[in-house]
Amino acid sequence: MYAFNDKILVVDLDDKTFETLKPPIGYYKKYIGGSGLGARLFIDYGGLEASPLSKNNPLIFMVGPLTGLTYPLAGRHFACARSPLTTFWGQGSSGGYWGAKLKKAGYDGLILLGGSDKPVYIVISNNDIEIRDAQGLWGLDSFKAEEEIKKDIGDKKFSVATIGQAGENRVLFAAIQNDRGRVVGRTGLGAVMGVKKVKGIAVYGDREVSVYDEDMFKRRYYESIKKVRKAPATKILRTHGTNALFEQIYEYGDLPVKYWSLGVWDIEKIRKLSGPSMTQAILRGVKACYLCPIACGREFEIKEGPCKGVSGHGPEYETVAAFGPLMLIDDINFIAYAGDLCNRYGIDTISAGSVIAFAMELYEKNIIDKNETDGIEIRWGDKEVVIKLIRMITFREGFGNYLADGVRRLAERYGEQAKKLAVHVKGLEFPMHDPRAFESWTLAYATSNRGACHTYASTYYIEKGLTFPEIGYDKPLDRFDYKSKPLAVKKLQDIYEFLDSMVMCRFHLYGGLPIRDVLDTFNLATGWNLTVDDALLIGERIFNLKRWINNKFGVDIEEDRLPEKIFIPLSEGGTKGHIPHWNEQIYEYYRLRGWDERGIVKKETLERLDIP
Amino acid sequence: MYAFNDKILVVDLDDKTFETLKPPIGYYKKYIGGSGLGARLFIDYGGLEASPLSKNNPLIFMVGPLTGLTYPLAGRHFACARSPLTTFWGQGSSGGYWGAKLKKAGYDGLILLGGSDKPVYIVISNNDIEIRDAQGLWGLDSFKAEEEIKKDIGDKKFSVATIGQAGENRVLFAAIQNDRGRVVGRTGLGAVMGVKKVKGIAVYGDREVSVYDEDMFKRRYYESIKKVRKAPATKILRTHGTNALFEQIYEYGDLPVKYWSLGVWDIEKIRKLSGPSMTQAILRGVKACYLCPIACGREFEIKEGPCKGVSGHGPEYETVAAFGPLMLIDDINFIAYAGDLCNRYGIDTISAGSVIAFAMELYEKNIIDKNETDGIEIRWGDKEVVIKLIRMITFREGFGNYLADGVRRLAERYGEQAKKLAVHVKGLEFPMHDPRAFESWTLAYATSNRGACHTYASTYYIEKGLTFPEIGYDKPLDRFDYKSKPLAVKKLQDIYEFLDSMVMCRFHLYGGLPIRDVLDTFNLATGWNLTVDDALLIGERIFNLKRWINNKFGVDIEEDRLPEKIFIPLSEGGTKGHIPHWNEQIYEYYRLRGWDERGIVKKETLERLDIP
Repeated sequence: MYAFNDKILVVDLDDKTFETLKPPIGYYKKYIGGSGLGARLFIDYGGLEASPLSKNNPLIFMVGPLTGLTYPLAGRHFACARSPLTTFWGQGSSGGYWGAKLKKAGYDGLILLGGSDKPVYIVISNNDIEIRDAQGLWGLDSFKAEEEIKKDIGDKKFSVATIGQAGENRVLFAAIQNDRGRVVGRTGLGAVMGVKKVKGIAVYGDREVSVYDEDMFKRRYYESIKKVRKAPATKILRTHGTNALFEQIYEYGDLPVKYWSLGVWDIEKIRKLSGPSMTQAILRGVKACYLCPIACGREFEIKEGPCKGVSGHGPEYETVAAFGPLMLIDDINFIAYAGDLCNRYGIDTISAGSVIAFAMELYEKNIIDKNETDGIEIRWGDKEVVIKLIRMITFREGFGNYLADGVRRLAERYGEQAKKLAVHVKGLEFPMHDPRAFESWTLAYATSNRGACHTYASTYYIEKGLTFPEIGYDKPLDRFDYKSKPLAVKKLQDIYEFLDSMVMCRFHLYGGLPIRDVLDTFNLATGWNLTVDDALLIGERIFNLKRWINNKFGVDIEEDRLPEKIFIPLSEGGTKGHIPHWNEQIYEYYRLRGWDERGIVKKETLERLDIP
Repeated sequence: MYAFNDKILVVDLDDKTFETLKPPIGYYKKYIGGSGLGARLFIDYGGLEASPLSKNNPLIFMVGPLTGLTYPLAGRHFACARSPLTTFWGQGSSGGYWGAKLKKAGYDGLILLGGSDKPVYIVISNNDIEIRDAQGLWGLDSFKAEEEIKKDIGDKKFSVATIGQAGENRVLFAAIQNDRGRVVGRTGLGAVMGVKKVKGIAVYGDREVSVYDEDMFKRRYYESIKKVRKAPATKILRTHGTNALFEQIYEYGDLPVKYWSLGVWDIEKIRKLSGPSMTQAILRGVKACYLCPIACGREFEIKEGPCKGVSGHGPEYETVAAFGPLMLIDDINFIAYAGDLCNRYGIDTISAGSVIAFAMELYEKNIIDKNETDGIEIRWGDKEVVIKLIRMITFREGFGNYLADGVRRLAERYGEQAKKLAVHVKGLEFPMHDPRAFESWTLAYATSNRGACHTYASTYYIEKGLTFPEIGYDKPLDRFDYKSKPLAVKKLQDIYEFLDSMVMCRFHLYGGLPIRDVLDTFNLATGWNLTVDDALLIGERIFNLKRWINNKFGVDIEEDRLPEKIFIPLSEGGTKGHIPHWNEQIYEYYRLRGWDERGIVKKETLERLDIP
């Protein structure tokens, strides 16, 4: 098929063999690629029977039809597995070059089965696959491991995905990084890679994947590049990175302060952390993923203070928020340093920042004290303590060992007072957006298959003024109105699932390439003729397939609840007095989805969507 | 008041001060002593607001009116606190001499508040209280710490309660041991002591507590001693210890085999572990608690195999079952060694054996594998692995770190398959009795305030032939009949709560001192004039007070459920085909208790029982 390789590489780590799978054509038609096709293959390879931290949990890396083509914003890849953090469906995606190179090596995906007894790394070079000893690399951080693997191969053209010490130690929110700073951050897939004792995966390929209409596709590439360059969001993202709109996000009340308990903070402190301040203070250069004209990636260098001279990648908005206002820190130098440290150790900055901020609240409320925390006084804004805890999490030392299990399990250690304060859905820590600020986060967080997630159904863009006319949203929705949201969230989830099955960067939506545009490109590349309705149906199928998997893993309405703390209205700030309307929306949403009142996918829905 | 000291010693570990509390007389009248009065004081000292592993969790040691008097079977003491294992009400009791000495030192109880920065031990010698540095003792096992503290004090008359390394490391089922082998085993109170950094508590006192009718009481003492000596159970317990009826328990199907999955095992193996075999193989001597003519305690010495020459205390029935058939081990030498090791490290043998056996099942079912277990193959019956895991639990090393959190939390790491196999109520691992064998265990386990517990409402004695005519049970109940059980369990719970508030060893009931007898003794000692109905009312009040505390901690019907695994009928053995009837009993029990359908104590019930 055009735009696909029709091949998945399956590596069996138990006996160090590999084979090439040619998925049935129906799989591609029904699930395209990315996390959609990943979910389907997950079932075939025993994912439903495997527990998250057994080596039988298949770890699946997927690209899509647009990945690696000469087309902007299509350089990403997905990783999927059962999440050790939530115990439910887990997935995450990352930018850089790794995905494009996997595609050009001739594969639409890579499935890791079983586990090795001793540390290994995998080299995929076009059709040449090698599993090499990595005992000398075990214990290295994720950047250092990447460097050593490249050195070992002796060819800088390779992209390498690695785990740091956190993945080795099965920190439940361990990440998989690639290309020195790009990260599959969420749901702890680094721990799955750690259990398999795979330290790294190096890929390189130079095959061009053919597309259906080469000429038109080439022309479209140049047009698309122009469109992206012209889009206002591009300039903003290029200049100030994903943290560009920090102040605006704060004004909406969307930015959490003091672990979701305050509506306002000192505006001067907010300004110190905003994109423009960050640009001025620490930006050394920008960094683009494969063929991306936006280049939202940041390279920083700290120019003053105790960390002077330290340089690295980031920080993204999520990191600035999590290590900033969430824990009452207003020092961008420190945040850049902390975020970089998380990348090196290989832990998700959202979960890490959240669990540390949560510990600060537990400490303040006397739910824990220093006799439980190895003598450490975990006070709001204490930067030295934060660095110490990041290290203790990574190595599972003392109290860090409990933090390494995430917010939900930490709370469960201390009973119902703590549970009432813990902010997560399905065990995944909230990203840095507040459902009190945009009603659409309510259902987006509640029903996202991987737990509280800001990248599925960012309906809040509609609330902020962006339109999606292709799917019926040609004007903004009121951010506090909840009646319009069940349908909007459902539709956005469906279209996002489709877009993710092609594996595109989310920023195309805001960067000049709306849904219609990308769909046309997809049709040019594949020679298919999908309509928006087809796309919605495919997205709906994928979303429901993952929900069905989650139902098998024990998810029902109880796991769709928002945390109690988020129903406490804030007395000041952009969300003053507003709370999410979960109760008022959830059953309508279930009805629209074709799920029963317990949140279980109905048989007729599975049949309608042709899910086996 | 006669038989009471009217004094509780309150030690504040934050500022190393202490004071003497004189509880209101109404407290004694309403809750007597033991865990009843302990629960009342727990509320006064901030227990409801404290999380289990904060130093604010008050750790309360209690004795009762009969403790330390010249009377048999009254040498025990209770410890109470919020349980780190369940996060709900926690309590346990222990024999030996420690309780009698605390009473004779002039106290009805000891409350530890706050926590020390550095390890300390406490010396209570009549009215002389000292808090001493214990930095040199931190890291010692519980026996060695007892020895060193005695040496340090220079007076062998002291009894010492200590924690081992498990309590220091906050293993969630860490125990508090005293008198070289007597143990407050359940609900993890050793971890609470560890958080407070109290390594040991040495007590000695020589005051005689006066009783109401000295002459009659003295005469009653001699009569009681005779009665106990004559009781058939005494001879059995003295000769073979608590493990005397191992075979009989197996015949009923009450003994769990292969982590609650098999109904039968090789009868020769069962015989090898029975009391008589144990007596023959390893008994070196018997050991009695304060003034106890039964002396069920065992001193063992291993006479062959790799542990030849090792001697120690135990093993009790629970330990033999947990480290025996539960994990398919039939070597009594090994079991004695493993149990002794648990005592030294300071961990509960029931929870430790359970969590290890559970790990064996997870390993067999591929829910975990050796890449998650630090390379250890956790196979059924592997004795070397068991010893290794006991150590790893104690020091929270690697995979042992997860085991140290108990069965419930271990299961939660691995999702719904694991949760379906985990055998606990409220997070407390089942003791070694199977609800499929005696229907009364169903409600006893479901509703005991500390979680699955065999010492409250051992209604199964009625099912096995013992009678309690004072409370209306003058003939045995059928063991598989469930209709009679809600009332029987309620009544037994109430009377047991009363007996525990006096602080008596359970064996008086089977050892010649039935309820009537003990109640008369109580009246002689105190000068009160309680009837059996009064006793039942006091017991009911205490039971409901603890339930009310648990409601505050989040307990409702969801926490009263039995584990799914126990509803799978066994195809062979003494319980063949029978499963517990939880659904059929629970609402009737709630009705009898005056709780609502969610298991919450109704306001009118609190008022009726005069609970504030």
